[in-house]
Amino acid sequence: MSAYAHPLLTDPEVATLFSEERLIAECIAFEIALTKALAATGRAESADAEAALAALASFKPDIAALRESTRDDGLLVPGLTRQIKTHIGPDAARAFHTGATSQDLLDTATARILRDLSSLFAPRLAAILEALAALEARHGSRPLMARTRLQAALPITVADRIATWRAPLIEAGNRLTTVTAATAILQFGGPVGTRDDPDLATAMADSLGLAVPERPRHTDRSHLADYAHWLSRLATALGKIGLDTALMAQQGIGEVRLSGGGTSSAMPHKQNPVRAETLVTLARWTATMLPTMTGIHEMERSGIAWAGEWLALPQMAESTGAALLAAEELLGQIEDFGSPA
Amino acid sequence: MSAYAHPLLTDPEVATLFSEERLIAECIAFEIALTKALAATGRAESADAEAALAALASFKPDIAALRESTRDDGLLVPGLTRQIKTHIGPDAARAFHTGATSQDLLDTATARILRDLSSLFAPRLAAILEALAALEARHGSRPLMARTRLQAALPITVADRIATWRAPLIEAGNRLTTVTAATAILQFGGPVGTRDDPDLATAMADSLGLAVPERPRHTDRSHLADYAHWLSRLATALGKIGLDTALMAQQGIGEVRLSGGGTSSAMPHKQNPVRAETLVTLARWTATMLPTMTGIHEMERSGIAWAGEWLALPQMAESTGAALLAAEELLGQIEDFGSPA
Amino acid sequence: MSAYAHPLLTDPEVATLFSEERLIAECIAFEIALTKALAATGRAESADAEAALAALASFKPDIAALRESTRDDGLLVPGLTRQIKTHIGPDAARAFHTGATSQDLLDTATARILRDLSSLFAPRLAAILEALAALEARHGSRPLMARTRLQAALPITVADRIATWRAPLIEAGNRLTTVTAATAILQFGGPVGTRDDPDLATAMADSLGLAVPERPRHTDRSHLADYAHWLSRLATALGKIGLDTALMAQQGIGEVRLSGGGTSSAMPHKQNPVRAETLVTLARWTATMLPTMTGIHEMERSGIAWAGEWLALPQMAESTGAALLAAEELLGQIEDFGSPA
Amino acid sequence: MSAYAHPLLTDPEVATLFSEERLIAECIAFEIALTKALAATGRAESADAEAALAALASFKPDIAALRESTRDDGLLVPGLTRQIKTHIGPDAARAFHTGATSQDLLDTATARILRDLSSLFAPRLAAILEALAALEARHGSRPLMARTRLQAALPITVADRIATWRAPLIEAGNRLTTVTAATAILQFGGPVGTRDDPDLATAMADSLGLAVPERPRHTDRSHLADYAHWLSRLATALGKIGLDTALMAQQGIGEVRLSGGGTSSAMPHKQNPVRAETLVTLARWTATMLPTMTGIHEMERSGIAWAGEWLALPQMAESTGAALLAAEELLGQIEDFGSPA
Repeated sequence: MSAYAHPLLTDPEVATLFSEERLIAECIAFEIALTKALAATGRAESADAEAALAALASFKPDIAALRESTRDDGLLVPGLTRQIKTHIGPDAARAFHTGATSQDLLDTATARILRDLSSLFAPRLAAILEALAALEARHGSRPLMARTRLQAALPITVADRIATWRAPLIEAGNRLTTVTAATAILQFGGPVGTRDDPDLATAMADSLGLAVPERPRHTDRSHLADYAHWLSRLATALGKIGLDTALMAQQGIGEVRLSGGGTSSAMPHKQNPVRAETLVTLARWTATMLPTMTGIHEMERSGIAWAGEWLALPQMAESTGAALLAAEELLGQIEDFGSPA
Repeated sequence: MSAYAHPLLTDPEVATLFSEERLIAECIAFEIALTKALAATGRAESADAEAALAALASFKPDIAALRESTRDDGLLVPGLTRQIKTHIGPDAARAFHTGATSQDLLDTATARILRDLSSLFAPRLAAILEALAALEARHGSRPLMARTRLQAALPITVADRIATWRAPLIEAGNRLTTVTAATAILQFGGPVGTRDDPDLATAMADSLGLAVPERPRHTDRSHLADYAHWLSRLATALGKIGLDTALMAQQGIGEVRLSGGGTSSAMPHKQNPVRAETLVTLARWTATMLPTMTGIHEMERSGIAWAGEWLALPQMAESTGAALLAAEELLGQIEDFGSPA
Repeated sequence: MSAYAHPLLTDPEVATLFSEERLIAECIAFEIALTKALAATGRAESADAEAALAALASFKPDIAALRESTRDDGLLVPGLTRQIKTHIGPDAARAFHTGATSQDLLDTATARILRDLSSLFAPRLAAILEALAALEARHGSRPLMARTRLQAALPITVADRIATWRAPLIEAGNRLTTVTAATAILQFGGPVGTRDDPDLATAMADSLGLAVPERPRHTDRSHLADYAHWLSRLATALGKIGLDTALMAQQGIGEVRLSGGGTSSAMPHKQNPVRAETLVTLARWTATMLPTMTGIHEMERSGIAWAGEWLALPQMAESTGAALLAAEELLGQIEDFGSPA
Repeated sequence: MSAYAHPLLTDPEVATLFSEERLIAECIAFEIALTKALAATGRAESADAEAALAALASFKPDIAALRESTRDDGLLVPGLTRQIKTHIGPDAARAFHTGATSQDLLDTATARILRDLSSLFAPRLAAILEALAALEARHGSRPLMARTRLQAALPITVADRIATWRAPLIEAGNRLTTVTAATAILQFGGPVGTRDDPDLATAMADSLGLAVPERPRHTDRSHLADYAHWLSRLATALGKIGLDTALMAQQGIGEVRLSGGGTSSAMPHKQNPVRAETLVTLARWTATMLPTMTGIHEMERSGIAWAGEWLALPQMAESTGAALLAAEELLGQIEDFGSPA
């Protein structure tokens, strides 16, 4: 995200997952797995494969040249494989990249990155649930005025409110395994998505820690749309904590008291509920990108809709990641919770 | 949808499901189920309940008055229950509406409407899959030029292309049961979402053919967001059929020939692939509404985000329904499919 | 909009502007203007034109047949002109529809409908500004707590807050003339948008009360995108009145007191700020449709992006219209405004 | 934008405009202008002001500390002004930051950044119009098949098609001055947007090269929404060039021939129209962010909607900038244009 998107709106760990460096590393990992699988299934000579693997291990991309070729090709892969081919020489090249297309590499990279993203998010989600449990233990029995349509309704307890925060987070956690497994798949359809070589695919997938999908998914992106939908649901659940807290922190309502809220450059008496507001901003922003993740991929592969995913998915991941961080911090700032005496 | 949204963009059957008439009928059905359950669980006198049920059976709403009260209350329910109370009299009213809030009625109505929507869509989806099977039987072995990034790539067969159309539709069909079950739930949280009366809820849910959710879902709308996401995925899958077909029907490409395409008022020689284009429009339009379906419901109940669902969900249903109709018709118009000789 | 979209979310006057009946009437008006202009500029025989005009005056469309042909053609126009041609006979038909394409008729219809929409909205906007002036006269000097980032900041007056409501509405009003004039243009580009017959166009435009644009705008839709943007800006300005009011009406804040707020079916003590909430919902909903109004129209005319406009524009108009109505009502409900004593 | 967003989807020059470094520099520029204006209008002692200006000139921010305080405050400004105050000492501090609020600094920064953005885009737009003129000179009289609804319609010329590309770009260019002027305004409303000190504001605005708006615009963001709308219109106009070109480059259509298109890692015979596709992706992506730019700013200042602008505006600028670059390159790649012989 842009530099205007300052610390609270960004998530450096997520940004690293979707970085150029990681993407290149993933493409090389794909090629290594492919070369190994070509050899293991007898589709390449052992000697060629060994030479290719040795060369791949020592390969260092020329980043500047790569950026230029990416600009021309609209894709990292053609330039990268050209560089690698030059590096490994013609013999080893016989055991390299055979049958793969750019989208195979990049989609497989995304699969592994999303798997790591899920691993990054799981403990964050757990920490938020723990913070909620701690809040409930401390303040749960306190009375709170339920508010419906922004109007005072009937008395409930702090535990009741916390229960509405917790439920969608628990569900998001429960579903994480499923959406992650559905995306943790090898893409290996070849140039026009029709490659069907189960042995080779299984060997590759094993080596990459991925599953072999029933069919290539060059144009059926529903697993990625599902993951994006999961991100947005999670961001919305965190956004509710933010919006409720910002509303409760209003003077005159005073149902939460926050420590360490944001200071104002002009009004030293103010404490701004900045993390609470941020959660609302991030939830809405994440949702904005949902339509981009359901684009139509025409024919056998779409350069148009696919590039839309590159724009939307990393940001949905980062804004949800930033929300997880802000939510945990916000919950830690709640010093008092309940109807004012 | 607006009248500008002409026949191809609308779906009268879906519109009927979300009509004022249906919504009123569903609210009355909720009240009948509630009265029965109050009596069955000993929470109301049998005599009161019987009187209430008899009166409910004969109740005819004053629609004009209802529209006016809805304008004032922002909701159908308060005016409707006032009308019913007047109709059934004070004694029977003791066995009426007890413990329910407007959102309980309207969300339960939505639950039953979505269940019917799924029942409407299932055979349409099946018909499309049959049409695809028929197309494959007729043209599947014909050669076709695969196109990636809108460029001719390598030869495939018509069956390969059809396989990419079919897969996401099969998956959508497989998932229909799950998303429908998740929404086919009784909402009965009471004014502030804390009502917890399992016996009463079970009795009501049984009578309405719904399940009892683990907790009220006044603010956790993820099941509805899931349904909306399912609609959008389905619309996108149908949109791909449309976009591919429109592209293949281009002069110079000529990979499909359509019968009965749209005529032009100015150029009698033209055949416009109107259903194909419509499928693309509907897919994009359906996706546009996804962010509205992930709104944050603040505090115990939100008038703001909830009303957003009333705007988005019926239209997402209708545009997906229109897409199902247009897709089946389009497939029926394909007279020839495959690379031109 | 759907029936779920109940009275507060709809605007029957706007719906009438975009109705099937109006659209048909506009298409006939276009043909009458064209026939007159063909005769006036010597492009058709007077006798043919007179016969055509007489027949057009007596033409009654077969609505059922029209709906069916619209479904086939994806457009109202081909079926309608076929019906008219049959009605007026072959001689008069020589002075009918010459050189026009479907998009010419429908875009010109939209131009005239938007002109009426602006005429409908102008007095509504004026009434809101009057209501703001009245509120200011009554409560303007009252103290009010300014709130920034949802926190109490420094004391201001009610007049200060009202000034922030008024400014964008005044600007919207000032801009209405410009955006309306930019859309009040004849579309008459012919089948492929290249028709260039200034005399004929001027004659037609005069008769329809429209201007002649510099060039046909079959694919350049920026004037419509501008109008949609204007609608969204207006809806946002009204949404701010709603959100501020809903927040001020909260118990504990109590800076506005509303009469006649929505009643609750379960909690008779509550007054829900339903119009205030509705304004927020409508503002967000209107904005949701902006991307659809900036679609790309490929080649000489796009069936895909054009149909998107038919879905989005009438609803943006209707939701903004509903917001104008709700805002005026809301301002009339403000009984007290200012910091509580 | 994310690293997934590779060269073709990004624009380093635009990114620099919205960088952290630039933002800090702009905040300091604001403070310098304010100190000067305070002295010039007698609102601060000359000696204090001179000391403050000298200290501001030598101030070097502690970036790491700034990032941390930004995370706490949700804003760059409080931490930055604290650092500066410490640096300049208590006496000079009397002539520093008086009467300004964070939003004044950041919105004024945005105003000056957008002015530079317009200066960056104007020559790019001019270069594209030149490239179109050159294409027209070279190929304009060549025949081309007009296509409506993706179907061959009637013959036109290449010049006719180019005219539809040029018109919205010329209009975007014409409007650039207006939208830029409307955003090139000083924000100086003070903590609650009510500051009204025309002399001071005029002095500041002069020194910053900005205009003084009629009123503070802390919550009325329509000028920014207008700028965003202008960006989206421009991106859509460029997107049309991309979509038309991608369609014309299809085998079987062959109405443009591109040089230097993207290579494929698997199919050496392919030339992918990557810039053309990219233009479509960028147009749709830019439009996606429009709703975020019409958020409601509640009360006197909104932390929620404001942060949404920080996420959306830099990216809309960057994606439009990337589209300008890609469009000029694409036009330069067109080697042949017109119906194949």
